[in-house]
Amino acid sequence: MERAIEIWFDFGSPYSYLSVMRIEAAAARHGVTVHWRPFLLGVVFRALGWERSPLLLDRERGAYMWIDMARQCRKYQLPWHCPSEFPRRAVVPTRVALWGAQMPWVGEFCRRLMQLNFVADCPIEGEAVSGEVLTALGLPAGEIVAAAQAEGQKLRLREQTESARQRGVFGAPTFFVGAEMFWGNDRLDDALALAAWGVEA
Amino acid sequence: MERAIEIWFDFGSPYSYLSVMRIEAAAARHGVTVHWRPFLLGVVFRALGWERSPLLLDRERGAYMWIDMARQCRKYQLPWHCPSEFPRRAVVPTRVALWGAQMPWVGEFCRRLMQLNFVADCPIEGEAVSGEVLTALGLPAGEIVAAAQAEGQKLRLREQTESARQRGVFGAPTFFVGAEMFWGNDRLDDALALAAWGVEA
Repeated sequence: MERAIEIWFDFGSPYSYLSVMRIEAAAARHGVTVHWRPFLLGVVFRALGWERSPLLLDRERGAYMWIDMARQCRKYQLPWHCPSEFPRRAVVPTRVALWGAQMPWVGEFCRRLMQLNFVADCPIEGEAVSGEVLTALGLPAGEIVAAAQAEGQKLRLREQTESARQRGVFGAPTFFVGAEMFWGNDRLDDALALAAWGVEA
Repeated sequence: MERAIEIWFDFGSPYSYLSVMRIEAAAARHGVTVHWRPFLLGVVFRALGWERSPLLLDRERGAYMWIDMARQCRKYQLPWHCPSEFPRRAVVPTRVALWGAQMPWVGEFCRRLMQLNFVADCPIEGEAVSGEVLTALGLPAGEIVAAAQAEGQKLRLREQTESARQRGVFGAPTFFVGAEMFWGNDRLDDALALAAWGVEA
């Protein structure tokens, strides 16, 4: 029986930032393995018939989200800068994270990308950004970016995103522990508690 | 400096059930006073341009909500029965709770109403239901229900609901600690932690 949790996340999603930053250390405390599942949340939203994030469909909830994010970052002791562009395009880093999802560096790569978006307030699309992060991690950036941008890899990301939709994902982050789905950073601890018991995949 | 928290809630709202059941004991542990603010969430939704609860606007999120509610009740050790009618009309008990909002019995009245909806799976509208709960609490049910159903009290509930909208409430439960708004049962602990510090009203 594997003790594992899947994290389905999007680099543009603020609540995904919270979980991407927290999950590896929290999972280690529970003896749980993390499976990284980057996908494109905007594609899922459009498939569900929403033009944009439901968080932005009305002014009241949109305004509240930014207040809530600042508070949550304070609670989790994470740095935070409200992004000047939202949501940021992040197709290239998503492909890189998907290509490297089984690699030991994937967690650190994802955290650094998230910090570029939500702390440094920088664009994260484009091969140069992912390349610089990979180089900083001591990895062969050129090879990895080229592999991640290959046609087959683009198709894999479309399949991964379609798989999110088919499994009932409607927001990010979403966690799976076996077949059990948990939505939102607020459920990370519950999902990890279940994963720690060991659940049939 | 008052250590206080306002809970804005609706008797038909599942996540309000969680907070109504939890708040008085949790606030007492923090030395915080609870101010009860019953209102009609459906009226606020319509004012925001939503026909129904945003939780029900799409199938995916609606289905997930019931799974999440069952899990949350297990976590908080609260009984739970998925209501066969949702959302239940609850204008009369809301007026009674508003009339009694300053009374020592208001917390117990609200908990019993919530349990009728989300544990016993019973209708909660109608004067008889509120009357029976008040009687069980040893209170003069007839007098209280008559007072709560008076014209002036109906107007007060409309004003209270309008006040929710004007303060930016877009869901339930919502907590205020001074001017700080917190949305959802998942933020009750954060709101209480702030209230425990003592915040200017």
